[in-house]
Amino acid sequence: MAVPMSWKLGELAVRFGCTLKGDPDVVLTRVAPLETAGPDELSFLANARHRRYLEQTRAGALVIDPALADACPVPALLTNNPHACFARIAALLHPLPPARIGVHERATVDGGARIAASASVGAGACIAAEATVGEHAVIGPGCVLMTGAVIGAHSRLWANVVIYPRVRIGERCILHAGAVIGGDGFGFAPDNGEWLKVPQVGSVIIGDDVEIGANTAIDRGAIGDTVIEDGVKLDNLIQIGHNVRIGAHTAIAAGVGVAGSTEIGKRCMIAGMVGITGHIRICDDVVVTGKSTVTNSVTKPGVYSSALPLEEAGMFRRNAARFKRLDQIARAVRALSGDKSPTLQKSMGDEE
Amino acid sequence: MAVPMSWKLGELAVRFGCTLKGDPDVVLTRVAPLETAGPDELSFLANARHRRYLEQTRAGALVIDPALADACPVPALLTNNPHACFARIAALLHPLPPARIGVHERATVDGGARIAASASVGAGACIAAEATVGEHAVIGPGCVLMTGAVIGAHSRLWANVVIYPRVRIGERCILHAGAVIGGDGFGFAPDNGEWLKVPQVGSVIIGDDVEIGANTAIDRGAIGDTVIEDGVKLDNLIQIGHNVRIGAHTAIAAGVGVAGSTEIGKRCMIAGMVGITGHIRICDDVVVTGKSTVTNSVTKPGVYSSALPLEEAGMFRRNAARFKRLDQIARAVRALSGDKSPTLQKSMGDEE
Amino acid sequence: MAVPMSWKLGELAVRFGCTLKGDPDVVLTRVAPLETAGPDELSFLANARHRRYLEQTRAGALVIDPALADACPVPALLTNNPHACFARIAALLHPLPPARIGVHERATVDGGARIAASASVGAGACIAAEATVGEHAVIGPGCVLMTGAVIGAHSRLWANVVIYPRVRIGERCILHAGAVIGGDGFGFAPDNGEWLKVPQVGSVIIGDDVEIGANTAIDRGAIGDTVIEDGVKLDNLIQIGHNVRIGAHTAIAAGVGVAGSTEIGKRCMIAGMVGITGHIRICDDVVVTGKSTVTNSVTKPGVYSSALPLEEAGMFRRNAARFKRLDQIARAVRALSGDKSPTLQKSMGDEE
Repeated sequence: MAVPMSWKLGELAVRFGCTLKGDPDVVLTRVAPLETAGPDELSFLANARHRRYLEQTRAGALVIDPALADACPVPALLTNNPHACFARIAALLHPLPPARIGVHERATVDGGARIAASASVGAGACIAAEATVGEHAVIGPGCVLMTGAVIGAHSRLWANVVIYPRVRIGERCILHAGAVIGGDGFGFAPDNGEWLKVPQVGSVIIGDDVEIGANTAIDRGAIGDTVIEDGVKLDNLIQIGHNVRIGAHTAIAAGVGVAGSTEIGKRCMIAGMVGITGHIRICDDVVVTGKSTVTNSVTKPGVYSSALPLEEAGMFRRNAARFKRLDQIARAVRALSGDKSPTLQKSMGDEE
Repeated sequence: MAVPMSWKLGELAVRFGCTLKGDPDVVLTRVAPLETAGPDELSFLANARHRRYLEQTRAGALVIDPALADACPVPALLTNNPHACFARIAALLHPLPPARIGVHERATVDGGARIAASASVGAGACIAAEATVGEHAVIGPGCVLMTGAVIGAHSRLWANVVIYPRVRIGERCILHAGAVIGGDGFGFAPDNGEWLKVPQVGSVIIGDDVEIGANTAIDRGAIGDTVIEDGVKLDNLIQIGHNVRIGAHTAIAAGVGVAGSTEIGKRCMIAGMVGITGHIRICDDVVVTGKSTVTNSVTKPGVYSSALPLEEAGMFRRNAARFKRLDQIARAVRALSGDKSPTLQKSMGDEE
Repeated sequence: MAVPMSWKLGELAVRFGCTLKGDPDVVLTRVAPLETAGPDELSFLANARHRRYLEQTRAGALVIDPALADACPVPALLTNNPHACFARIAALLHPLPPARIGVHERATVDGGARIAASASVGAGACIAAEATVGEHAVIGPGCVLMTGAVIGAHSRLWANVVIYPRVRIGERCILHAGAVIGGDGFGFAPDNGEWLKVPQVGSVIIGDDVEIGANTAIDRGAIGDTVIEDGVKLDNLIQIGHNVRIGAHTAIAAGVGVAGSTEIGKRCMIAGMVGITGHIRICDDVVVTGKSTVTNSVTKPGVYSSALPLEEAGMFRRNAARFKRLDQIARAVRALSGDKSPTLQKSMGDEE
């Protein structure tokens, strides 16, 4: 498809500040998995646990930790952060095809919108009045920018992305297909047995270097804004409720839901399908493991969990039936232990 | 952006039937959060728990419960349902920009479709034969209405919404971007080790005043229809399976899944990321807390849960390991208690 | 809408190889639920548990298991797999309206794309250079095929489906609206307190006869491809991470998430909202019940669970509080049982 780029290993070592081990003239055209890489392909090994794959690799070269240098049978770039270095080289070898500059004749752009000269607007895109698209930004086919939406320089909306009115996206952001930014938050007031819609008059403010996955939805604020700070990475199919704030460089995996008005700190890692209730605060540097349920604020950095692991179904059912009587079981244990071990009773969660 | 509307507090009191406290000539142009509202902004306080914020507010006026009148340092509208009253005033102060009436020249409308004269059809929308769009309905950019789809009067499809053949949407509904209504249900018959597709020949019927969130999917019936009754509110990224029925004025938060043929009653509240199995019935006025799993019918109104709360990961792991032996632990307790307390044993869930 | 097809029961018996019971001249025009079917409608009964509905049916005819023949008050087609037979007849009675062959004038097709003469491309679709659309394939309105995407013969993309560069879709596949295939996997390397994007240079390979639900997202591989084998059925709102492989004829219900590099075997059934962690392997013929969490490889076919069932909220809260002390409770039981039953202690999950 695209003409492959090719680089010599020695050139890569200089460009990325690595120590070179072996022949600088090895020519590399692309990256590949360690197991399948061939002589013109670069691979990497970040994790010493996988060093058993080293022996048999036929890769042209590897990016590895210096500690693995002796075990590596092929030329290598040595660096303390092989994954990051590999990512940079992969970006060099596999550049995105450049988008066609200018507004496609099949795009619909309101006269009152401002599109930078170096931006690209694809076929079928619709850009409303007062929307702004920054320099080198790419608005892919089928994307919709509503009134007053702002897309920062160098940001890319892949395809069929929808940006509601007045939402602001920073620079160098990547929004994958089907993402919806700025839809109404879920706000209703009970009113004589029915639900009365509460107008969602806030917006969404997204910082720089944010990536947002396919079909992820971020709601606009009810009053005040929903805020995604710089460097946040959101995977696919995530729900971010109104007035949520997510701190810089936090990463959230697919399928997570964050309910309204919750604040998540900086540098958190939220694994897939975690549910986070509304109106709580999670401090910086918190890790939540997959499928957990977060119903209270988390005030201490650390790793947290709440999802039971898989069991054979019959056994699980028996244990789950016992869980329904767990309070009674604990009381029985207390009764049996009598007054012999009050400390123990307390440790069992006795509340009376 | 839009020219702000401005209203005097006294006018609002009359229009919305509130008791006025303080200066009727305060001019208000928009709503804002209690903490940040300035002199031309209206805010509200529904919950007496937050009365500590009252003292310092600089809002032009507040909508509050009469019981808080004395504590309120600024002019106020007194009403028994501050949230609903505030919602109505917010809608007045922040009207949606009117959609351009008529069919955009970049929309594609089949000659056999009927579009009301007062309706709006945006650029890039595609409307197939025999589809109907009611008076004052708004079909946003990139929306697709397939053959025979019906959109009731005053309903709004924001952008990139897809309506499959013969689906019927009522009046005054709001469908957010990326919603998909009427895709095939997940119906397959096992057939010699493979799956044979079961044609999904039913449709989806959606009542009046229904709101459907971004990227939510509602499947058409297998045979017979999927039905969403009047006033139901569905948040983002919800899955509604084929032949489900959801009763009037039920509200369902983001990320919920409802499997096929299940019936949910009226006025239920299902919190985020709850999973509801197929072929069961949930009665009216049931509340299910976030991330719960519903595998059996619920026959009594009330509040229900099933998701464990978060713990520090190491501690959680130890407890989860014990859970895998919970049936054995219960048996041990029974053995220890011997014949001393048969009632207790029963309460522990002993099945033998 | 469409002119109904009509068939005589005797014709259907011959065509589908069923034993006919009753009048071969009954005329059938469509399928309907057992409870509501009228004299020109066909229904079916696969499950003997529902035989009570047989008595009162007014259907023109039924497709049933031979064992139910005597209990059936109306004409019937007898077959050992009533559901599959019914599915085939339903497809005959309810054919999809044929798509208009050719490229719609409002579609945007790059000169370098290859569109088969018998294919259909709808209004608003965008097809990039080097993309290929096979014979009789249908690319619905608003779909986007990026550079080098390949759609096999007879496959159908309903509407607003997005296919990223170089993704390959097999033959006879069905992709529902809003599906996104080939977006970037969630790959970032930590780099001085920020996340560095790892280019996702693999692709997605989808076999034949695969169905993909509305708003489902399948990520392209990081290096190497994400692979969905023949006959896999994916429901709505599913997340498939980068480099996942899903074995032939596996069915996955709505809302499931599969994290990166995990392999799922053939003929598995994964119920709704299950979460499956990355880098594990699930063997063939595994069933996972709804909302379970899979954190380790599964090496034995069988049925597995991990989601607690619903309880009244107050009771659940008490039991959940005890769960937080479950390790302590188990220790208390051990202490009480003393040295009387070491086997019991082991069975309780004692690790010391």
